[in-house]
Amino acid sequence: MKAVQVVGYHQDLVLNEIPKPEITGPLDVIVRIGGAGVCRTDLHILEGQWAEKSQVTLPYTIGHENAGWVDAVGSAVTNVAVGDKVILHPLVTCGLCRACRAGDDVHCETSDFPGIDTDGGYAEYLKTTARSVVRLDDSLEPAEVAALADAGLTAYHAAAKVAAVTRPGDYCVVIGAGGLGHIGIQVLAAISGVTMIVVDQNPDAVELAMEIGAHHGIVADGTHVKKVVELTGGHGAEAVLDFVGEGGATSEGVAMLRQAGNYLVVGYGENIDVPTIDIVSSEINFIGNLVGSYNDLGELMALAAQGKVKLHTTEYPLTEFGRALADLDAGRVRGRAILVP
Amino acid sequence: MKAVQVVGYHQDLVLNEIPKPEITGPLDVIVRIGGAGVCRTDLHILEGQWAEKSQVTLPYTIGHENAGWVDAVGSAVTNVAVGDKVILHPLVTCGLCRACRAGDDVHCETSDFPGIDTDGGYAEYLKTTARSVVRLDDSLEPAEVAALADAGLTAYHAAAKVAAVTRPGDYCVVIGAGGLGHIGIQVLAAISGVTMIVVDQNPDAVELAMEIGAHHGIVADGTHVKKVVELTGGHGAEAVLDFVGEGGATSEGVAMLRQAGNYLVVGYGENIDVPTIDIVSSEINFIGNLVGSYNDLGELMALAAQGKVKLHTTEYPLTEFGRALADLDAGRVRGRAILVP
Amino acid sequence: MKAVQVVGYHQDLVLNEIPKPEITGPLDVIVRIGGAGVCRTDLHILEGQWAEKSQVTLPYTIGHENAGWVDAVGSAVTNVAVGDKVILHPLVTCGLCRACRAGDDVHCETSDFPGIDTDGGYAEYLKTTARSVVRLDDSLEPAEVAALADAGLTAYHAAAKVAAVTRPGDYCVVIGAGGLGHIGIQVLAAISGVTMIVVDQNPDAVELAMEIGAHHGIVADGTHVKKVVELTGGHGAEAVLDFVGEGGATSEGVAMLRQAGNYLVVGYGENIDVPTIDIVSSEINFIGNLVGSYNDLGELMALAAQGKVKLHTTEYPLTEFGRALADLDAGRVRGRAILVP
Amino acid sequence: MKAVQVVGYHQDLVLNEIPKPEITGPLDVIVRIGGAGVCRTDLHILEGQWAEKSQVTLPYTIGHENAGWVDAVGSAVTNVAVGDKVILHPLVTCGLCRACRAGDDVHCETSDFPGIDTDGGYAEYLKTTARSVVRLDDSLEPAEVAALADAGLTAYHAAAKVAAVTRPGDYCVVIGAGGLGHIGIQVLAAISGVTMIVVDQNPDAVELAMEIGAHHGIVADGTHVKKVVELTGGHGAEAVLDFVGEGGATSEGVAMLRQAGNYLVVGYGENIDVPTIDIVSSEINFIGNLVGSYNDLGELMALAAQGKVKLHTTEYPLTEFGRALADLDAGRVRGRAILVP
Repeated sequence: MKAVQVVGYHQDLVLNEIPKPEITGPLDVIVRIGGAGVCRTDLHILEGQWAEKSQVTLPYTIGHENAGWVDAVGSAVTNVAVGDKVILHPLVTCGLCRACRAGDDVHCETSDFPGIDTDGGYAEYLKTTARSVVRLDDSLEPAEVAALADAGLTAYHAAAKVAAVTRPGDYCVVIGAGGLGHIGIQVLAAISGVTMIVVDQNPDAVELAMEIGAHHGIVADGTHVKKVVELTGGHGAEAVLDFVGEGGATSEGVAMLRQAGNYLVVGYGENIDVPTIDIVSSEINFIGNLVGSYNDLGELMALAAQGKVKLHTTEYPLTEFGRALADLDAGRVRGRAILVP
Repeated sequence: MKAVQVVGYHQDLVLNEIPKPEITGPLDVIVRIGGAGVCRTDLHILEGQWAEKSQVTLPYTIGHENAGWVDAVGSAVTNVAVGDKVILHPLVTCGLCRACRAGDDVHCETSDFPGIDTDGGYAEYLKTTARSVVRLDDSLEPAEVAALADAGLTAYHAAAKVAAVTRPGDYCVVIGAGGLGHIGIQVLAAISGVTMIVVDQNPDAVELAMEIGAHHGIVADGTHVKKVVELTGGHGAEAVLDFVGEGGATSEGVAMLRQAGNYLVVGYGENIDVPTIDIVSSEINFIGNLVGSYNDLGELMALAAQGKVKLHTTEYPLTEFGRALADLDAGRVRGRAILVP
Repeated sequence: MKAVQVVGYHQDLVLNEIPKPEITGPLDVIVRIGGAGVCRTDLHILEGQWAEKSQVTLPYTIGHENAGWVDAVGSAVTNVAVGDKVILHPLVTCGLCRACRAGDDVHCETSDFPGIDTDGGYAEYLKTTARSVVRLDDSLEPAEVAALADAGLTAYHAAAKVAAVTRPGDYCVVIGAGGLGHIGIQVLAAISGVTMIVVDQNPDAVELAMEIGAHHGIVADGTHVKKVVELTGGHGAEAVLDFVGEGGATSEGVAMLRQAGNYLVVGYGENIDVPTIDIVSSEINFIGNLVGSYNDLGELMALAAQGKVKLHTTEYPLTEFGRALADLDAGRVRGRAILVP
Repeated sequence: MKAVQVVGYHQDLVLNEIPKPEITGPLDVIVRIGGAGVCRTDLHILEGQWAEKSQVTLPYTIGHENAGWVDAVGSAVTNVAVGDKVILHPLVTCGLCRACRAGDDVHCETSDFPGIDTDGGYAEYLKTTARSVVRLDDSLEPAEVAALADAGLTAYHAAAKVAAVTRPGDYCVVIGAGGLGHIGIQVLAAISGVTMIVVDQNPDAVELAMEIGAHHGIVADGTHVKKVVELTGGHGAEAVLDFVGEGGATSEGVAMLRQAGNYLVVGYGENIDVPTIDIVSSEINFIGNLVGSYNDLGELMALAAQGKVKLHTTEYPLTEFGRALADLDAGRVRGRAILVP
């Protein structure tokens, strides 16, 4: 089969002909890829940023946002059947550790990460297990939703935590209305009653945010902290959902937070650097957010099937992977780029 | 001032001229009524059904769904000012018992219930306290929202519990799409990602439910339990929100419930009568629901201000209270009847 | 190996020599039994009460409360190793359905129940899977804890729910201080701050309850409802944990419950039969309770290792299974009977 | 009446004869002081550290940890009666703002703080309101529990949060087994099943911790982070409860935390300074903690009445306030110093 592989760092990806994966274990699932999201992380992998962390052996197939159709299943697979449309959770988890058993499979003690530390989805087929495949509603197509598998799932996971700790009418500031923020805003609009204030440096992003559910949009221009404080009656917001995490976003975000508020950290780059006396006297919380769980992915797909979460995508044939990555690198992709074998 | 009063059971209400209430305590608030909901309970009061329970002394002013403008405040009132638009929580609570302090003021140990056991809002002015007044957003008018103060608040309270115990894509069956159900459906659509199945005997009610957020509508015709079970893949629904509670609704509702599901009891009439062995082996829960708390009312008003919860109303001048009650009794009111002084 | 088997209903159990089970799948685990609890359910099985429900093919090995040492593991087992001391969760679950992934494996869509519908633990060896084995702390011995695997786990599961919905100083009435109640009381004493009122018909059981953590003991003599209401200042208890569920316990229990209280149903026999108007006006909940999850069992073993939950046991050699069952049937066992191969 | 007052910063306190406070409002409560805790904050007040923040007008009566007997009540007080034994929540709150109504009165928008910004309890009588008085169980005496009103309440509040986010057998590291830590350890032992690892620089404090419920005690000697990581199987602890917050405690604490763990900030001094990438990739949370709510204080008193939380105290006559403060300043007080009028 065709597969786009990393053959060396600081080198171009290569389209190789490799053997189609086969079922070897009872929980194995082979998926015929219908769409693979092209993510900024893929560029970072080629730059070697993940080499040490992933310890992956080259060459290997890249691509960690995958969806398609079940092509073959192992003898013990009970949750999907050949022909089912599926999206793949980014991790392959054990199902035996306490985290997996508690619905927190993201913190599985022995997980794999296809596309990062083992073969991924820029290919015709991918081998995963029954633990990672989420069946899609009839109304959804693999290429439409593939890019929700990782970035979208992270945004859903964090936004769902906001929904759990707020009540209708509470304020939630969303910092950053880009790729993740755009999903987070749709999720908050769908499952919470917060009054959403979106802050972004890009006026177009702010405008888009208003169209998809934000109640107030503020272009970050140096007066945005003051504007948020005023909008919230001088109190600050019950929650801040920070998709930026760098360039001063966190200190600004803390200044926008109400007493007893929750600061959701999603974007990263700088440090959270806050005096403990302030954390104590204002009794605020900082909540870390990684990608969502398998069940989170099922929930996000339910919202997608209900038409409440939409992603704009641009499709490329698998063989044009080079153009897709170049477009991404140059900022020429509208929405998310998807490779379709 | 003018006030519509109960002067005897099984007698018509009378429009009396009585003294305008005055501030006597530091937390007192006088509200100039902008709208008072006309509720089926008002008919029951006249039939004497509440006489023993309320122990109210006649004559007294009826009307328990009230909104208006603050006319005067006691010396210790800090949360509203003269001129503020407000809706009134149905109870006047103590603020001192453990329930009041825990956000559960509905279970206050010493509350009053204006319109039921003390003077209510079919009048030009009503006396309440700072504990009961919720400020309205500029975009809302008292006469529009008054009828959300009791019936709507009950529906919000129960629907918010459903949102708290379900996840997007879980099924929720709503039994009954009438006055309360209609609000409950809008709330579920606003703050949860459940797949909503609405069951009602009235095809028009089912149609309306589909317009305001239901995903599946089923006319109760004897096959509805079977249809729900099929729609849910044979498992039943994660939650049933029962606004009927009589005529066999509860046994049908239990038959629609999934293992580990939650049955929300709102409507009443018959008994919950279920073998303990079934409760244990299916590990289901029955959740009682009374009216919501003061903070719940603030949250419902936030959803109303966001345009997510709407109520159709028909206004009558206060002096035409007789016509309003007659129309209600005869089923001639579209939406809710509101008296406007 | 030796195994005690059901060869026919209404017949005595038979000690057979059968092949030792073998690893056939990658997640299989063979356990050398160190102790198997003798449970009243085993008597019911022999009476044929489970025949239709379990659809088990005779002969099969009985015994559903098991602990021992890992004897062999399949190729994919990562959570235990040969030689580990383990207790067995009563169910063998799939790990793939939504319930298993959400920490609620008890509601697995395709589970087996060794000792009930497949070979159990009245034997030298038992075959289970990696999904069911909980490693024991060094300080615990299999024969000591085996009987916590099912009955104890049910009591833990329900008592942990009480702890989650109460606060220190809230009242919890425990109805029934027998086998399960005795564990539930220890769990409440360990992980909650409730003021515990224990009600039992047996004065000795009440006395024991006081020794292991109850704050008030009441012998059920017809005045017990009144006594509970008085003890709780006329309000009733925030929670009732009912291990009886028959003989009028539930209507008495409801009469002991405070407004907004939680009624935990564990014991069974009669119906919960309560007017919906009462459920609504007092806003009470009925909470079903089945056996606990795999993670619950790990938590119960943690409490056992901390010395906070203890079980009195009487050991019998496996070959004396007949005497053990006869003693149980005749009420001659102090604590729980354990078969030791 | 006698009252010990601040007459100037950097000056000694003075025992003045001032008028006994009187009821002026309907919710007022006059308490005859039975015990007032002598706290390190009182020394800081005299050093002028609170002058700007509190804006208190001198002279005023110091003392913010108070308990006693109700001496007089206003006309609207329903929760206590003259003669009742009570402990005083440190804040006097409004009961009208959303926080007060949600059980979070500590974040009241308009609270007073007797002993800090208005007259406190180093006196024969203190004036507070019905919102601040918690009735004591018959078994408790005001002088015994007064010092739990602020420091103890803070420790309870934080430990109760740990109990809510952990399960039995999870690890909780307690950093600091001094005044607050000592209460926190007792609370964790009473209402949670965590395996408690206590870290302190003082071997005596560690020894005491083991006596009151800790499972592992570690003297902080530079190897303590490594020891905690080893004890937790290399994973770190599910929760860290930090009563120190300075001298490097927070970076050490974070190094002891498991993936998805919760870091409870109580002590203060240094900054939380952690890369957002670490917060995200390990998905950890930082949870701020201020003093507990009124209901929290009721719960702490319930644990005290059950004998589960004990405080060692040394009593001084009110007139010997100077000796009490000097003893505190010199480290000569065993447990907490209490002034008794």
